Amino acid sequence: MTFAIGVDIGGTKIAAGLVSEAGELLKRESEPTPDDSSTIPKIVAALAERLAGDEKIVGVGIGAAGFTSTDRTTVRFAPNINWVDEPLAEQVSALLDLPVVVENDANAAAWGEFAFGAGEDTDDLLLVTVGTGVGGGIVHHGQLYRGGFGVAAEIGHMRIVPDGIACGCGQHGCFEQYASGSALVRNARERVANGDPGTDALRALADGNLSKITGPALTDLAHDGDELSIELLADLGQWIGEGLAILASILDPRVIAIGGGVAGAGDLLLGPVVEAFETHLPALSHRPQAEVRLAALGNAAGIIGAADLARTEPV
Amino acid sequence: MTFAIGVDIGGTKIAAGLVSEAGELLKRESEPTPDDSSTIPKIVAALAERLAGDEKIVGVGIGAAGFTSTDRTTVRFAPNINWVDEPLAEQVSALLDLPVVVENDANAAAWGEFAFGAGEDTDDLLLVTVGTGVGGGIVHHGQLYRGGFGVAAEIGHMRIVPDGIACGCGQHGCFEQYASGSALVRNARERVANGDPGTDALRALADGNLSKITGPALTDLAHDGDELSIELLADLGQWIGEGLAILASILDPRVIAIGGGVAGAGDLLLGPVVEAFETHLPALSHRPQAEVRLAALGNAAGIIGAADLARTEPV
Amino acid sequence: MTFAIGVDIGGTKIAAGLVSEAGELLKRESEPTPDDSSTIPKIVAALAERLAGDEKIVGVGIGAAGFTSTDRTTVRFAPNINWVDEPLAEQVSALLDLPVVVENDANAAAWGEFAFGAGEDTDDLLLVTVGTGVGGGIVHHGQLYRGGFGVAAEIGHMRIVPDGIACGCGQHGCFEQYASGSALVRNARERVANGDPGTDALRALADGNLSKITGPALTDLAHDGDELSIELLADLGQWIGEGLAILASILDPRVIAIGGGVAGAGDLLLGPVVEAFETHLPALSHRPQAEVRLAALGNAAGIIGAADLARTEPV
Amino acid sequence: MTFAIGVDIGGTKIAAGLVSEAGELLKRESEPTPDDSSTIPKIVAALAERLAGDEKIVGVGIGAAGFTSTDRTTVRFAPNINWVDEPLAEQVSALLDLPVVVENDANAAAWGEFAFGAGEDTDDLLLVTVGTGVGGGIVHHGQLYRGGFGVAAEIGHMRIVPDGIACGCGQHGCFEQYASGSALVRNARERVANGDPGTDALRALADGNLSKITGPALTDLAHDGDELSIELLADLGQWIGEGLAILASILDPRVIAIGGGVAGAGDLLLGPVVEAFETHLPALSHRPQAEVRLAALGNAAGIIGAADLARTEPV
Repeated sequence: MTFAIGVDIGGTKIAAGLVSEAGELLKRESEPTPDDSSTIPKIVAALAERLAGDEKIVGVGIGAAGFTSTDRTTVRFAPNINWVDEPLAEQVSALLDLPVVVENDANAAAWGEFAFGAGEDTDDLLLVTVGTGVGGGIVHHGQLYRGGFGVAAEIGHMRIVPDGIACGCGQHGCFEQYASGSALVRNARERVANGDPGTDALRALADGNLSKITGPALTDLAHDGDELSIELLADLGQWIGEGLAILASILDPRVIAIGGGVAGAGDLLLGPVVEAFETHLPALSHRPQAEVRLAALGNAAGIIGAADLARTEPV
Repeated sequence: MTFAIGVDIGGTKIAAGLVSEAGELLKRESEPTPDDSSTIPKIVAALAERLAGDEKIVGVGIGAAGFTSTDRTTVRFAPNINWVDEPLAEQVSALLDLPVVVENDANAAAWGEFAFGAGEDTDDLLLVTVGTGVGGGIVHHGQLYRGGFGVAAEIGHMRIVPDGIACGCGQHGCFEQYASGSALVRNARERVANGDPGTDALRALADGNLSKITGPALTDLAHDGDELSIELLADLGQWIGEGLAILASILDPRVIAIGGGVAGAGDLLLGPVVEAFETHLPALSHRPQAEVRLAALGNAAGIIGAADLARTEPV
Repeated sequence: MTFAIGVDIGGTKIAAGLVSEAGELLKRESEPTPDDSSTIPKIVAALAERLAGDEKIVGVGIGAAGFTSTDRTTVRFAPNINWVDEPLAEQVSALLDLPVVVENDANAAAWGEFAFGAGEDTDDLLLVTVGTGVGGGIVHHGQLYRGGFGVAAEIGHMRIVPDGIACGCGQHGCFEQYASGSALVRNARERVANGDPGTDALRALADGNLSKITGPALTDLAHDGDELSIELLADLGQWIGEGLAILASILDPRVIAIGGGVAGAGDLLLGPVVEAFETHLPALSHRPQAEVRLAALGNAAGIIGAADLARTEPV
Repeated sequence: MTFAIGVDIGGTKIAAGLVSEAGELLKRESEPTPDDSSTIPKIVAALAERLAGDEKIVGVGIGAAGFTSTDRTTVRFAPNINWVDEPLAEQVSALLDLPVVVENDANAAAWGEFAFGAGEDTDDLLLVTVGTGVGGGIVHHGQLYRGGFGVAAEIGHMRIVPDGIACGCGQHGCFEQYASGSALVRNARERVANGDPGTDALRALADGNLSKITGPALTDLAHDGDELSIELLADLGQWIGEGLAILASILDPRVIAIGGGVAGAGDLLLGPVVEAFETHLPALSHRPQAEVRLAALGNAAGIIGAADLARTEPV
C-alpha cells in the first residue's frame, strides 16, 4: 500500500492531507497562508513530512489558486499570492526528495471528484465550484483538460452579461459576479439596504450590520423557510443553471458536479439549477443531456485530487 | 502512397474529395443534397467510387452537419436533414467495403485545419466557422475534443446575450444570432429598412429588394470603402471577438482560426475581431494569449479533415 | 344632460359608444375594420349616428392606434391601417356636423381611466396596457401628456434589453417583446416546443397545435393551479414591474394602472408586477412610491376616454 | 428692470448669481458647501445679499441636487447633503424677506436652457446633463414637468442594462453607469489597467497613477488625435444616444440638449450621440424626430433657470 500527499494552497489557508490509493483522506492538517510567499515551500514540506510519518509516499500533488504551467511544475500567476512564474514543484521537491506536481486548484478538485467522488461513474465530468468565486475543472475522456497554456476552465470569468457587473479581473459581466456565493450575499445585502419588501428576516439577521448576512446564515434562514432567502438561493441557482447550459454547449460533459461552499444549500440550490439548466439547453429534446449533481467530496476534493494527480496522471 | 475520401454533407450540397496522406485535395465533386435522405448513402458511395478511380483508398470520412455519436458511426440528429440515429457509417461501408467514420462537420474542418492548415504549428486549436451559422471544433493536445456525448463545441448556441434575439434552436441570445454572416446581413437590411443615416450605398445595392443585400455583396462594398459596410463588418468582428474571449476563458486554445464564408472579408473582419478579443480577455496582462488567425483551407477544410480522420484518428 | 360619442379604431375592429358626462358607457356597437381605409370615416359616422339616436351630442372623440398630431386632427401614421397624415377629424366632422377630436388610442384610454377609472383619485397617472403589444398613456397634473410631436408614451418600444429580441419596429429589445401578452404566449410555446420540464398541462392544451396556447387559455391553466403557467405569468409580471421601475424614474406618476387583456390574470400578474417594481425602483427607501393597480374600465377605457376628450380637454 | 437671484447647491459648492429678466447672469459668486448642512440657509442668504447690492430683487430660486417637493418649498432627500424633508424655502425666506422657491437642480438647468438657451426655440425640451452622474429635466408644452411627487426625470437611474453595473442607488445597470463622465473615466482606467492594446497615450497620461486620467484630460487627448480616447468618447456617445432613443420613445421632446461637463468634448461626443440616437429610434422613418444639440449655458444653466423659476413659474 502506498500513499500520496495532497496540498491545497489558497489565499488564506494551506491545507494538506495523506491520501491512500483508494482516495481516502487519512490525515489532514493546515497552516495559515503566510504573507511572505517565499516561505510557502517550507510550510508545504513541513506539512508533508508531518503527514507522511513512516508511510511510504510516492509523491506530492499541489493544487494552487492560480494559473499553472502545462508541464505541472510552475505557478504562472496567482492573484491572491505574490507569485509570478514560481517554480513551486522544484522548490518543494528539493526539500522533500519526492516527485512533486503542481496543478490549478479547481483542476485538482475536478480530478478528485472524477477519481473518487461525484464523477466516479463517468469519463466526462465538469466540476463547477461555487464559493467566493466560481471555478471549474474539466475531465474529458478520462483525462484532465488543461488547455494549451494550462489555464483552461476559468469559467468564473466567462462573460455572461454584456456590460454587466464589474469584476476584479478588469472585465464586466463575469459569471462569478452572478453565480457565486459572493453574488448571493451581495444581492441579499442590497435588498436589505434598499428597504425592499420581504426583508424582515434578513434585516433581523443583519441587526444593523450588513456584514452579518453571510452565505451560511442566509442558507440557514432558507432552510427555516424564509421566503426571500429561498428566492435568493433560487435566483443564484438560476444563474448557475444558465451558465451550465452555456458550458454544456461548448464542453458536452456527461456529468456536471456542483461543489464549493454554496453546495451546502443542497436541493434549495440544486432544484433551481437543474430547472434553469434544462430550460436553457439548446435543442434539448434532440440531444443527450448531462446529469447535474452535487459534488461528493466537499472541500477535501482539492487535496484528494492533487494527491492522486501526483500518482496517476502523466503530463 | 495511399488516399482517403473526405465527404462533407450539408443541407444543400454533398461535397467530396480525394485526399492524399499530405492533406492535398486532388479531386473534388459534389451532388445536391436530396429531399429523400434515405438515398444519401448511395450518393456518397457513388461519389467515393468516382473519386477513387484506380487509387488505393484506405477509408472514407464523412463530416455531417449535426450531432454525431462518440463512436463515429451514427448521426444522432441533423436539423437540416431528416435523420435521427442514422447508422450512416455502416450504410456507406456496406456499399463500398471500406472503413467509414462519421464526424460532425465543424469537427472535421477543425481537424483539417489542425492537420494541414491554420493549426499546423500547434496542438491546441479552436476553429470557429462563421457562415450562415457559427460552428466550432476543438483540438486539444493533438486530439479532437468530442465531448462526452459527441456533441461538444456547439459554440453557435452558447448564450451571449441574456433574453436576446430568438434562435431557431428554441433559445434566446445564441452566439450565432450576433456573430454569423446571417446576423451581418440581417443588421444591414434592418438599417436600410429603418431608413437609418449612411445607408445610401446599401440602399442602392438593394434597389428595392432587401434580399439583394448579401454577405459577399456587403463585403465588396466594404472593400470599396463604404463606411457603413465597414462599420457593420466591424460590429460583426466585435461580437466574434467578444465570443472568442469567452471561449478562450473556458477552452484555452493556443491558436484560434476563423473560417467560414465571412472570413473572406479578411482584415476588415480580423482587425476588429482581434481588438475585441484582446479587450475582453480576462486578466490579459497576466496570461498567455491565443493567437487569432484566418483559417487556411477555405471550404475544403471539412473534406480534408474528414478524409484524414478516416485515416489517422482512433476513436 | 349631454352626451359624447367615443370611438376606438383598432386593426381589427372599430368600437364606439355613447358616453354620459359621468363617463357611463350607455350603448356600444362595433364594426370590423375594413381593408379599404378610405371608408373608415363613413363607418365611424354611421356608428355615431346610430348610437346618438335622439340624444344631444356635444362631440366625437376618436382613439386610433397610431401616431396622432398634437392638434388632435390628424393620424400621422398608423402601422396597422393604411394611413399617413390622414385628416380624420375633418373627414368625420364633415359627415356629422359635430366637433371631432383624434387622439392616440392608449392616450384616450389613459384619459378614460384618469377621469372615471383607476386614476380617479390622482392627477398623475400612468396607464400601461398589456395586450398584443404594450401601450401607454400619461396624465400629468391633470392634463394628458402628448409630447412635442404628439407621439409620447410609446413605451412598448423603449429598449429594455440591449441587443435583445427583434421587434417589428426595426429595433431590438423593445419592452413589448418581453412584457406583452404576445411575449407570454411565445414563451409558453417555446417551452413546449423545446420539450422543457413541467410542460404537461400546456402540451395537453396545445394538443399538437401550438397555436391553441393563447393568453386566456394559459391564464385559465394558471387559475387552475398549473405551476408552469403561474411561473410564466410571474415571469411576465417581473418584466412589467422592471419596466415600470424605469418609467417611474422618468415620469414619476402617483398611480400606475395596468390594463389590456393580460390584466385579466389579476393577482397572478399584479403580485409579481408589484414585487419587481418595488425591488427595482432606485432609492426606494428615500422616495415616494407610485401605487400600482389594475385598470378599472377594461376595454371600454378607450371609448370612454375618447368621448370625454371630445368634451373636456382643450388642445 | 427687476432681478432675481439664482442658487445652485451641489455637493461641493454653492454657486449663486444675479440674473436679469432677460436671463443674463450679471454677477456670480460661490462658497464651498459646508459639512454642517444647517448653515446652508445662512450661506445662501449672505450670497444673495451680496449679489443683490442695491438692485430690486423679486425672488430667489434655489436648485438643489436631490428630490424636491412639488410645492417647491422642501428638499425631500439629498444624497450628498444631510437633508431629509428640509423646509429650505422657508428657512431662506425668513432670512431675506423675499419669496423663495426650491427646485431640483437639473430641473432648474432645464428651465434655464428652455428660457434662454438651447431650448429657446421650442416648447418641448429634454435636457440631459452628463457629468459625474447623469441628470435630466423636462419641459413639456412650455411648463416644467415635475412629476406626481416632484421627482421626475431621474434619468440617470433608468435601467439600461439588465443585471448591469452596480450603482450607488442600490440598483444595477443604471444609465449613469454607462453614459456619464465617470463611466468614461472608469473605462479608460480599466483599459490601461488591463494592458489593452492602444493605451500608450493614456498610460503616458497616467504616468503610474490612474487617477490622473480624468474626463478633461482624456478629452484633450482626443482633440489631439489619440485614437483610443476618440473611441472611448464615441463609446460614451453611443450609450448616451441609445438612452436618448429610449427617452424619446417615452417623452417625445422636440429638442434634446446635452449639457454637463462632458459636453465640452463637442462634436467628438455629439456626432456619435446623434448617430446612435437615429439608429436606435423606433419607427424612425415614420415619426418626427427630435433634434439633438449641445446645451448653451454651460454650468450657469442651473443658476439662470432657478432665478427665472423664482420669477415666472407658478407651482
